[in-house]
Amino acid sequence: MKEELDKIFDFCREIDKEKFIGRQTYLTGAVRKENDAEHAWHAALMAILFSGYSNKKIDLLKTVTMILIHDIVEIDAGDTYAYDDEAKKTQRQREEKAADRIFGILPTDKAKELRDLWEEFERNDTPEANFAHVMDNLQPMMLNDYVGGKAWEEHGVVLSKVLERNKATPQGSEILWNYAFENIIKPNVNKKTIKNDI
Amino acid sequence: MKEELDKIFDFCREIDKEKFIGRQTYLTGAVRKENDAEHAWHAALMAILFSGYSNKKIDLLKTVTMILIHDIVEIDAGDTYAYDDEAKKTQRQREEKAADRIFGILPTDKAKELRDLWEEFERNDTPEANFAHVMDNLQPMMLNDYVGGKAWEEHGVVLSKVLERNKATPQGSEILWNYAFENIIKPNVNKKTIKNDI
Repeated sequence: MKEELDKIFDFCREIDKEKFIGRQTYLTGAVRKENDAEHAWHAALMAILFSGYSNKKIDLLKTVTMILIHDIVEIDAGDTYAYDDEAKKTQRQREEKAADRIFGILPTDKAKELRDLWEEFERNDTPEANFAHVMDNLQPMMLNDYVGGKAWEEHGVVLSKVLERNKATPQGSEILWNYAFENIIKPNVNKKTIKNDI
Repeated sequence: MKEELDKIFDFCREIDKEKFIGRQTYLTGAVRKENDAEHAWHAALMAILFSGYSNKKIDLLKTVTMILIHDIVEIDAGDTYAYDDEAKKTQRQREEKAADRIFGILPTDKAKELRDLWEEFERNDTPEANFAHVMDNLQPMMLNDYVGGKAWEEHGVVLSKVLERNKATPQGSEILWNYAFENIIKPNVNKKTIKNDI
């Protein structure tokens, strides 16, 4: 048992580094950008609050766990900004190598469990993964809007890219997608913080 | 439905402020201290990984939810350092007022659900609350030890206080308490980062 506990603690110490992985989303006040751990906390809690709006019935603990671990690979692979097409080309390869090393710190059964859950999130082919992706997209969208669209403006984000990134969002939750389109995307297109290119 | 969604989004925007509530625990590298959102993410994930070591069978989703929300009241009430006896005197009153305001942003049923869960955590009288407290204590203890005991040294923390703070820890998990005592507390007492006053 000592060996198993040592390995879980080793993993828990290692993932502390996720708190240093910066994202492009500004927090309240638009001064500091958030990190992966803060994002995962926020999105996990949003999943609990919005779970009733999933298109399909979901196992909420599985969904929350998936969200809590979905960015751990970025400790080695770095954050790939949603609208950075160059970085996206090598993303999968970088993240697989990271998953091997980081989840591999855990005892075998737990390593497999979390690795499988991360792969499921990446494949996005189950109701839980679909809903986890809705939260992964909705949380930064909500914050970007809240601080006046600053990150979208800085990166010159265009509407077609936002729609492309969110093409699977209605698959997880039609209600939340419609809400986000009407209350977040449209107003930002109107005030030109998201450029209308279509 | 629009009104219900508006309220949940209002709450989700409000809790972004938890990312600005500083704690006394240093992160990896011992340069920056962590905030409440990072702590909650870390402790929630630890609960999932260590759940098999709870003394009693727990509802893991309930435990994880409890951990994700347990510090939200600190948005108004501030973080009360575990070893600050003066601040602890007014803590309950400050936190109740905060709970009224912040959980009150949610639709009535969800406000009650989260408020009840936070009260259960505070009372610490269920297996889920017991285990959530183990994680709430173990996570900073693990990090303090990992960075060489810097926060304990800075605050002149003594062994009797560490034991007092952890008096309910064996109630949540005897195995984890014994592990932490042997592998974290004892070594830090030996190297005097925790002062032995007993």
